[in-house]
Amino acid sequence: MRASYYRGNQTFTTGAAPVPTPQSGEALLRVRRVGICGTDLHIYQGHLDHRVPKGGIIGHETFAEVAEAPAASGFAAGDRVVVEPLWFCGECRACRMGAPYICYRLKVLGVDVAGGMQDYWAVPTSRLIKVPDALNDDHAALMEPLAIATHDVKRAQVKAGDAVVVFGGGPIGCLIALVSRHRGARVLVSEVNPFRVDLLKSLGLEVFLPDPAAGGRDLVRAVNDRTGGDGADVAFEVTGNAAAVRLMTDVVRVWGTISVVAIHAEPMLVNLYPMFARELTMHGSRLYAREDWEEAIRLASAGAVPVGPLVSRRIPLEDLQKGMEEALAGGPVMKVLVDLAG
Amino acid sequence: MRASYYRGNQTFTTGAAPVPTPQSGEALLRVRRVGICGTDLHIYQGHLDHRVPKGGIIGHETFAEVAEAPAASGFAAGDRVVVEPLWFCGECRACRMGAPYICYRLKVLGVDVAGGMQDYWAVPTSRLIKVPDALNDDHAALMEPLAIATHDVKRAQVKAGDAVVVFGGGPIGCLIALVSRHRGARVLVSEVNPFRVDLLKSLGLEVFLPDPAAGGRDLVRAVNDRTGGDGADVAFEVTGNAAAVRLMTDVVRVWGTISVVAIHAEPMLVNLYPMFARELTMHGSRLYAREDWEEAIRLASAGAVPVGPLVSRRIPLEDLQKGMEEALAGGPVMKVLVDLAG
Repeated sequence: MRASYYRGNQTFTTGAAPVPTPQSGEALLRVRRVGICGTDLHIYQGHLDHRVPKGGIIGHETFAEVAEAPAASGFAAGDRVVVEPLWFCGECRACRMGAPYICYRLKVLGVDVAGGMQDYWAVPTSRLIKVPDALNDDHAALMEPLAIATHDVKRAQVKAGDAVVVFGGGPIGCLIALVSRHRGARVLVSEVNPFRVDLLKSLGLEVFLPDPAAGGRDLVRAVNDRTGGDGADVAFEVTGNAAAVRLMTDVVRVWGTISVVAIHAEPMLVNLYPMFARELTMHGSRLYAREDWEEAIRLASAGAVPVGPLVSRRIPLEDLQKGMEEALAGGPVMKVLVDLAG
Repeated sequence: MRASYYRGNQTFTTGAAPVPTPQSGEALLRVRRVGICGTDLHIYQGHLDHRVPKGGIIGHETFAEVAEAPAASGFAAGDRVVVEPLWFCGECRACRMGAPYICYRLKVLGVDVAGGMQDYWAVPTSRLIKVPDALNDDHAALMEPLAIATHDVKRAQVKAGDAVVVFGGGPIGCLIALVSRHRGARVLVSEVNPFRVDLLKSLGLEVFLPDPAAGGRDLVRAVNDRTGGDGADVAFEVTGNAAAVRLMTDVVRVWGTISVVAIHAEPMLVNLYPMFARELTMHGSRLYAREDWEEAIRLASAGAVPVGPLVSRRIPLEDLQKGMEEALAGGPVMKVLVDLAG
């Protein structure tokens, strides 16, 4: 079978590997699709070299078919599944609080330990979630980012009638916007990439194109215009960019909420004055509970959140390196899937 | 009568003024004590020149006696009162939400409009709160900062058994620590001023003196040592300093809370990574609801929060300028009161 290996220095190579032998409690999966995610781009650029071993196998947005499963595991050969890519200790404060996805010893499959970028993958059955036939293989591969989005929207307590601003209309920002809209919120997405702007509009989302010369004041005005001067109820920071971080506290109403979804490896300049003056709340939002996956599958299966249009293209495993280069360059792309079924 | 006027350029002058004539709904107060606050130091340094008019009268921590009050107002000559120094519109989103102290059109008496640094002051009776005889005049002047502290601790939901870190042991930080301790929390105050360190210790508070060479890692270790590696439940940022802001997200447990109490006029570098990785919540905390004053008066009257030891000295109104200079220089001082009764 094939596997793709991270070599450091912005390099992935595809090579032959033995089919893994499942350990006790594990199923052997035949991987069909793996999404390329912003975190993977961080890995590609070396930002997570302290976590990802050289020779490691990435990929945490995986759709697969069960090849073998233990008897009485509830899974059988042929089952269509997605993988909740988390290992947690079960004992630390976070696990005891009921939030194992922020376990102090958390390992993410596809980051800290081997992920889905291989033809066969051995995974504990406790991490598998069946997907209904209503979701095709591409859709199923989107359940991981959609679970991120359902978690983020739940944690931010978006409700009907809320004014929501999403900084960044990439895959996660787009899905947050769609889930928020499904909850009845009025959503404005701030995005500059023309391909993504068109795609967001084609999904019926309202998009704001900031004028770089305005230093963000144009977005603040647009939000105030739409909210009678109050400001937005909720803002999501999904860009990782300094400009959005500088602006995020300026667009929110008194007692409003800012959700920090993007990963900021370096300290960022934040305007704390509105945090104080308007008593804002800012929180981080990381991974997902099992219920967030269940909601993602429910929303996509019902067509309430259209995920198909986000798939820009499928590439073979051998093109992972090229896919990373293209994704990093920006350009006309939303979600790229590695297709291992072809 | 005397009044002290802000002249800009780090200058206050004391001069003669006519006794104010109360308007409809106002009482005439004979001012006895006015505390000097961190906000006043911001004013002195010109940071709030966009809000404080030249020739304005500052002072928002006021204890007074009623000289005259309207009939049937519930107040009468001789009543001992403190002043909730807020004007709000009653119509905006914040007021309708029940948070008039973050009114979009808020005016703070002693900042945006005239405050207590004058012998007589006309104030709407709706802003007066009676204080019991259990509180002497000095104690009563501390009710405004104590209401800030009760508000901050309430908003951060500090509860018995919580590990609390307070960055900055000035008057507000000290009062936050005392209120948190009264709620049953284990409190660690990070402070460098030797006078304040000794005072905090004399109040039975545990104090951490950071080693500047350690870049804050010594505080993180101290907090982890005290919490089995989990981190603190709640951290309060009450310094306004860049070093504390850089550190505040590093000392808090998963799902922990950071309360930003200090005023940060400039954007600050914040380490957002733990916000994401530990799903932290950060909120701003500004002024107070009426119940926060009521709790302050209750706690101080019962001796549950000792406020007397915070009073470093009393100065006459004519020395306001000098008091500002000394307060800004740091040194052996906690709370300075302007004494208008002498």
